[in-house]
Amino acid sequence: MAKFLPLTALWLAALVLSVPPGLASEPMHFYARPANGLALTPPMGWNSWNHFGCHVNAALIEREARAMVSSGMKAAGYRYVIIDDCWQGARGPNGNIHADRKRFPQGMKAVVDAVHALGLKFGIYSDAGAETCQGRPGGRGHEYQDALTYARWGVDYLKYDWCNTGGERPRTAYATMADALRATGRPIVFSLCDWGVRAPWRWGAAAGGNLWRTTPDIWDSWSGHHGFAIGMLNILDRQVGLAHYAGPGHWNDPDMLEIGNGGMTQAQYRAQFSLWAMLAAPLIAGNDLTHMDAQTRAILTNREVIAVDQDRLGIEGQPVYRHGAAEIWVRPLTGGREAVVLLNRGTQPLSMRLTWSELGLPSYLPVQLRDLWRHRDLPVATHAVRFHVAPTSVIMLTETPVRPGHSG
Amino acid sequence: MAKFLPLTALWLAALVLSVPPGLASEPMHFYARPANGLALTPPMGWNSWNHFGCHVNAALIEREARAMVSSGMKAAGYRYVIIDDCWQGARGPNGNIHADRKRFPQGMKAVVDAVHALGLKFGIYSDAGAETCQGRPGGRGHEYQDALTYARWGVDYLKYDWCNTGGERPRTAYATMADALRATGRPIVFSLCDWGVRAPWRWGAAAGGNLWRTTPDIWDSWSGHHGFAIGMLNILDRQVGLAHYAGPGHWNDPDMLEIGNGGMTQAQYRAQFSLWAMLAAPLIAGNDLTHMDAQTRAILTNREVIAVDQDRLGIEGQPVYRHGAAEIWVRPLTGGREAVVLLNRGTQPLSMRLTWSELGLPSYLPVQLRDLWRHRDLPVATHAVRFHVAPTSVIMLTETPVRPGHSG
Repeated sequence: MAKFLPLTALWLAALVLSVPPGLASEPMHFYARPANGLALTPPMGWNSWNHFGCHVNAALIEREARAMVSSGMKAAGYRYVIIDDCWQGARGPNGNIHADRKRFPQGMKAVVDAVHALGLKFGIYSDAGAETCQGRPGGRGHEYQDALTYARWGVDYLKYDWCNTGGERPRTAYATMADALRATGRPIVFSLCDWGVRAPWRWGAAAGGNLWRTTPDIWDSWSGHHGFAIGMLNILDRQVGLAHYAGPGHWNDPDMLEIGNGGMTQAQYRAQFSLWAMLAAPLIAGNDLTHMDAQTRAILTNREVIAVDQDRLGIEGQPVYRHGAAEIWVRPLTGGREAVVLLNRGTQPLSMRLTWSELGLPSYLPVQLRDLWRHRDLPVATHAVRFHVAPTSVIMLTETPVRPGHSG
Repeated sequence: MAKFLPLTALWLAALVLSVPPGLASEPMHFYARPANGLALTPPMGWNSWNHFGCHVNAALIEREARAMVSSGMKAAGYRYVIIDDCWQGARGPNGNIHADRKRFPQGMKAVVDAVHALGLKFGIYSDAGAETCQGRPGGRGHEYQDALTYARWGVDYLKYDWCNTGGERPRTAYATMADALRATGRPIVFSLCDWGVRAPWRWGAAAGGNLWRTTPDIWDSWSGHHGFAIGMLNILDRQVGLAHYAGPGHWNDPDMLEIGNGGMTQAQYRAQFSLWAMLAAPLIAGNDLTHMDAQTRAILTNREVIAVDQDRLGIEGQPVYRHGAAEIWVRPLTGGREAVVLLNRGTQPLSMRLTWSELGLPSYLPVQLRDLWRHRDLPVATHAVRFHVAPTSVIMLTETPVRPGHSG
């Protein structure tokens, strides 16, 4: 039975409960923050890559943006409509980048304006190398020029990839682009995407990143891998130990959501959404918003899970218990609460016991648990509660200590 | 008596004399060349830094350009009028670089046009970092934009410095700028200036450089150092072992000439000019061409020494003998000839014996020596010749084997 250090001591200072002396004043984040003041909670939005790959055009982006509103995604908190690779045409005689004329006949600014008119924000994609992953013009040596172009188009978010970068250092290359974005004067969220190769959690914030990919691309699968891309649990496992690098304005990015793309069951997709919320991950949907079934929409717009992801403390969750297929993750929330995920990684049902010691709480404390997928409170309990967790699925809870005098 | 491997075997294949089998077909240069086809002999010109430092303006540059013609420098082969740091004003709203308006009231293109009108070429300066050494705007992240600006102004040569580059890799940063220059379509000589810190001789040509500095800045002195800058002999010593990295289109750069700037004697300046010619070094004068005394002009326009520097084989000389203050350098030339420098580094007169074995020649061979500073042939000799070399000075010779049947 492997035990991980409970996180709760950090925030329990906010409670009237006694905490070990000294811990209460310990700083939560030790790393430089990007100066742009953006992404104080993890960005939420949609990106074209996971579903549409290179097949992007103006009509598609505007259609998805409208669906983000009509589907209720916008109301649930999703804001950024992000076009990934393949939007680029050639550079003009001054070296300025232009959108592909066939795919974007009115130019990119018209698309940005349409997205803004819906009350949404617009994200774009480029690459630190001479070419993007799909062979379009990259940003190397054009950083200030491209940043100005993006700012003029009204871009609010830049995902910056790492293909074809021969010889560049990630930290240095990303810092150049961050400086260029800053120089435009426009607030632009900066999303680093070196696939975690050079431990970007160590320098991503100092280099001006609001988020940084921690792994290779996600593959729409519970586990396993597919070439360079890796399944959901493989990505999850690589987040362990990175929690203290994240915080408001600077986030670990375990890649985008696959919910609704068909490679996993609904229970597995609920698991991705739950675990990404525990990770304080960017919630970037990657499905076709114009053809979303009710279950997919219910997952992506689960406000209770989203509230965990967007918790303003910005402390990432960590595993506190792992044994066989069973795993328990805990994330401290504002107000002295915690989010909890019981994960069954395996193909057999599991009976899992959640003990208060895993929550960092004294066993006598009465605690109110709430199931975030069934949307109901459980009976107030002490010591521990037992759960049955279906194969390849999660139960997601919040726990709220019941103050003496207010509880029975 | 330390002996260095004579170079002569490489080119003696061109002679009727017998050479060790195998050596004749050995390739002379093993390193990638820049693709721009420029600088097939070492660039010759003038640069503002050594004499004027930061005090540059349009009138000064145009005056020096006219003096390059009227002084006979142009007729002797000098072509590039290069403005060093401090020409820059701020960047415009599109990020384009502009010349300082006070110093260049008509803009930089007017200066370039004036230089071109004299039949000369124009060189400019920038830096791979965010700022130049003197705190002007640097090229980092603006590479393509700046290259286009230079091309539009008609720039023929770019010296690219290494200040304020935090985190960049020299090879990568210089390759980005080389790509940007290439993309303009204008032939622009590319001069790398990382001060030799990262062994640019190993990658300078592959990164697109036509020349690369091998050392810190030169200090106008026979030896010693002055902060970061080092005296002439200290620079010379650091060239040993680098010869095989240089060749047509890609040159080691031991920094610019100090001749006429007053820190050395005329004999010492003759030594710099002689040794730089042995090194196939760029000959970039650094004095005030408008106030040149007859001796300075005689040194800088010595056509026989310049012919050694500009020899089209492009093989750099190396020391073949060093003992105490005495040093002998030999450089293979086209047509089976060699240039020779006898260097007295010390403050006492030296008697030095030049033996044919140092020249890689059989001792019985009759050889015609010519003194390149006295401009006269010496009597045809065999075996060896003895010279008296004054303190801190050189004797510079060419040797031409006298073919059997043509000699006495």
